[in-house]
Amino acid sequence: MNNKMIRYILYKLIGVEGIMLLIPMAVAILYGESSYLSFLIVAAVLIALSLTLGAKKPENPVIYAKEGFFIVGLTWVIWSVFGALPFVISGAIPNFIDAFFETVSGFTTTGSTILAEIETLPKGILFWRSFTHWIGGMGVLVFVLAIIPLADKRSMYLMRAEVPGPTVGKLVPRTMGTAKILYAIYIGLTFLQVILLMFGGLSLYDALVHAFGTAGTGGFSVYNASIAAYNSAYVDGVITIFMILFGVNFNLFYLMIAKKFAQAFKNTELWTYLGIIASSILIITINIYHLYGTVTASFRHASFQVASIITTTGYATADFATWPYLSQMILLLLMVLGACAGSTGGGIKIARVVLMVKSIRRELKRLVHPRSVNVVRMDGKTVEEETIQGVHTYLLFYMVILFVSILLVSFNSLDVSTTISSVISCLNNIGPGLGEITGPTGNFSTLSFFSKIVLSLDMLIGRLEIFPILLLAMPSLWKKK
Amino acid sequence: MNNKMIRYILYKLIGVEGIMLLIPMAVAILYGESSYLSFLIVAAVLIALSLTLGAKKPENPVIYAKEGFFIVGLTWVIWSVFGALPFVISGAIPNFIDAFFETVSGFTTTGSTILAEIETLPKGILFWRSFTHWIGGMGVLVFVLAIIPLADKRSMYLMRAEVPGPTVGKLVPRTMGTAKILYAIYIGLTFLQVILLMFGGLSLYDALVHAFGTAGTGGFSVYNASIAAYNSAYVDGVITIFMILFGVNFNLFYLMIAKKFAQAFKNTELWTYLGIIASSILIITINIYHLYGTVTASFRHASFQVASIITTTGYATADFATWPYLSQMILLLLMVLGACAGSTGGGIKIARVVLMVKSIRRELKRLVHPRSVNVVRMDGKTVEEETIQGVHTYLLFYMVILFVSILLVSFNSLDVSTTISSVISCLNNIGPGLGEITGPTGNFSTLSFFSKIVLSLDMLIGRLEIFPILLLAMPSLWKKK
Repeated sequence: MNNKMIRYILYKLIGVEGIMLLIPMAVAILYGESSYLSFLIVAAVLIALSLTLGAKKPENPVIYAKEGFFIVGLTWVIWSVFGALPFVISGAIPNFIDAFFETVSGFTTTGSTILAEIETLPKGILFWRSFTHWIGGMGVLVFVLAIIPLADKRSMYLMRAEVPGPTVGKLVPRTMGTAKILYAIYIGLTFLQVILLMFGGLSLYDALVHAFGTAGTGGFSVYNASIAAYNSAYVDGVITIFMILFGVNFNLFYLMIAKKFAQAFKNTELWTYLGIIASSILIITINIYHLYGTVTASFRHASFQVASIITTTGYATADFATWPYLSQMILLLLMVLGACAGSTGGGIKIARVVLMVKSIRRELKRLVHPRSVNVVRMDGKTVEEETIQGVHTYLLFYMVILFVSILLVSFNSLDVSTTISSVISCLNNIGPGLGEITGPTGNFSTLSFFSKIVLSLDMLIGRLEIFPILLLAMPSLWKKK
Repeated sequence: MNNKMIRYILYKLIGVEGIMLLIPMAVAILYGESSYLSFLIVAAVLIALSLTLGAKKPENPVIYAKEGFFIVGLTWVIWSVFGALPFVISGAIPNFIDAFFETVSGFTTTGSTILAEIETLPKGILFWRSFTHWIGGMGVLVFVLAIIPLADKRSMYLMRAEVPGPTVGKLVPRTMGTAKILYAIYIGLTFLQVILLMFGGLSLYDALVHAFGTAGTGGFSVYNASIAAYNSAYVDGVITIFMILFGVNFNLFYLMIAKKFAQAFKNTELWTYLGIIASSILIITINIYHLYGTVTASFRHASFQVASIITTTGYATADFATWPYLSQMILLLLMVLGACAGSTGGGIKIARVVLMVKSIRRELKRLVHPRSVNVVRMDGKTVEEETIQGVHTYLLFYMVILFVSILLVSFNSLDVSTTISSVISCLNNIGPGLGEITGPTGNFSTLSFFSKIVLSLDMLIGRLEIFPILLLAMPSLWKKK
């Protein structure tokens, strides 16, 4: 382990967080709120630390995959700890564990909240809360890679640890270029959504925070009733479409910009994703028809909730915890699936599910014809065995973590449905669970501190796809040489 | 595929079922019940079919793993179809799908029932219902292998497809010898339990049916209140101990008989199994103490239910659906784990869980030290890579089948807890789910026929550990050459 280089990058990164905190501070000043002070204090400390301790670049800048995972895992934890401080200092969330849960939920784009009453909080605080979604959506480090030059091979290790999905391909030869393109698409889409929301009558502030929540597939709103507060079919429609868009692999947008339409539309994951969305909307529209009376209303609520859950955003326009059980079960299953690889969405990812189904079909063939050689193909290309093994390992870890988390949260004595759905919701970075307590109209405030810590770790594990956080728990990596 | 040999073995096997049906027939005659006729009819047809069509042994008796899986899968389906007929003909369960569900539940030692009222049924019918547990527990084919001589290499393929667990080792050089030893231990333990239950005041009939249910880890009782009907701490204790014993790998009993104690007690799976049982009993005893008032009563109910669920037996002395949520969640997690490999219990099996945890630890090590070579060791021996890959494949299939089954049963519009626990209960051959409908005091009668068929397949898939049943669904195996 190159400890000096790790420390150097970490100090740089907390400086970046310090600079980011100046944005909500500006918002607070603009609205004449005293909460600006809480941002100023934390930002000043972080920037000062970064400038003094992180000033000297080490002579040996060589890092490997191991260091990459380690830096990514540690950065997310540190950012969450410091990011929670403005909530505590301003008194918006007085308890640190609650504030940590809320910040982790923000950065990981989960959107689970411990706040029962949102609307009375200062605007600067709520802006920071939503802004964490936007930062975390594309990735803390992808952002840094877009602006800080690093040796190319080294930086790829960082990117691979943070971008979701079974494989990470570079779009252009240099990592910095790839990161810049990704961020350009991200900013462009967010901007487009802000404009469209403002056409729907939203203020710039409202449009911004809800676009942040959509773009990061996070789900924090500034209203207790979430998106239902607007009660507007237009707003629902815009957000539904953008949630689905932000759940698509960003590489496909790049291909479309580069006019490689044939290659973009040959994507198996995209069609599976759209197919699952369409069939879920169809079934739920029929299933909830009796509750809303018209096809239009049922379709509007079904499509919004399906898009919100499969992309792991977590916005709500309806209390789906009161929907028929069939609809609830379908939403629960969509929670596990998640969005496309290389998008801002969470969950297992459609690409992994597709690869798993293909790998399973191969195993069955192998059982029948033991000597045949079968390769797994996707999008017309042969999938490397290493990728398939990676998917298997990922899913095994996922199962074990799900099992252990459910066991630990069980000690909170919540009902079966709440326990299981809360863990799935946090591990897959969705937001609401099922049931009254943690469902779309509830919040996580009444859970025990122990459960909140377990669920915070689950959110981090889910967002970083398991390994960076698990590595932090390995004692051998913390040993001094 | 050697179709002639497959057909030959299948005809032999339905003949064996015909002979077995004569036992409940004798019980019916003994109790002067007219239901003996229903057994006689089915037995006569099966024996006649077997004697005429299965008379000539094909010239080419060569079969491979593929045929082994195919025969095992098909036999269990055919045995269940014919085994259901006495229920239908006698009028005990007039609907065939219900009777099929009940018979599959019997043979697979699940113990889920569609009967709301058991005590009014004829004794011969109830005897057959419990006897299916005993037959299915050790395995239909292991029994046949113990009595019908087959070329040794061929018969091992059949045994491997039916005995639960990641590996099957022969105890003695010949398969027939191994099958005989297994059955001798099985019969011996069952006999001991019958004697001990009779000391507790049970009639021979009661002792027999409940020993069948315990030995097969099935769970069918002849009382609506299950074992609670006796309200006897002695009976509860005997059944608790025997449930735990029948959840142990039978190879260990053989080692103990052969006085290889050191080897038997070096078994990692055994200690993990006992450790999980002990800690679950401890937590639940504390958690339910306020319901029963004394440590003795809490311990008695906690230990019985834990033993019943982890071994996937499914007997009940208490309505655990009314227990605190912590206890319910622990039982739900035990449902998934299951008992030891090579026992009559179902579930994923402790050995697989241990191997998975070890394999996961290795993956983490590999991430930190990419070039290190790590082998997985268990019980002091190196585990073959093929076995580990097998466990991975098994768990992936398990996840997918669980996911798809939950999706299909969701259309039954049951609540989340009932849907998930019913599928887990059937797939792991346990019996009761959680909640009012399919919990320990409920039954599966109100579920839709579609759900009953899905759950019947889940029971078969669970008992035969996935592959034999999945192979039946592959069209290429049914093609005529």
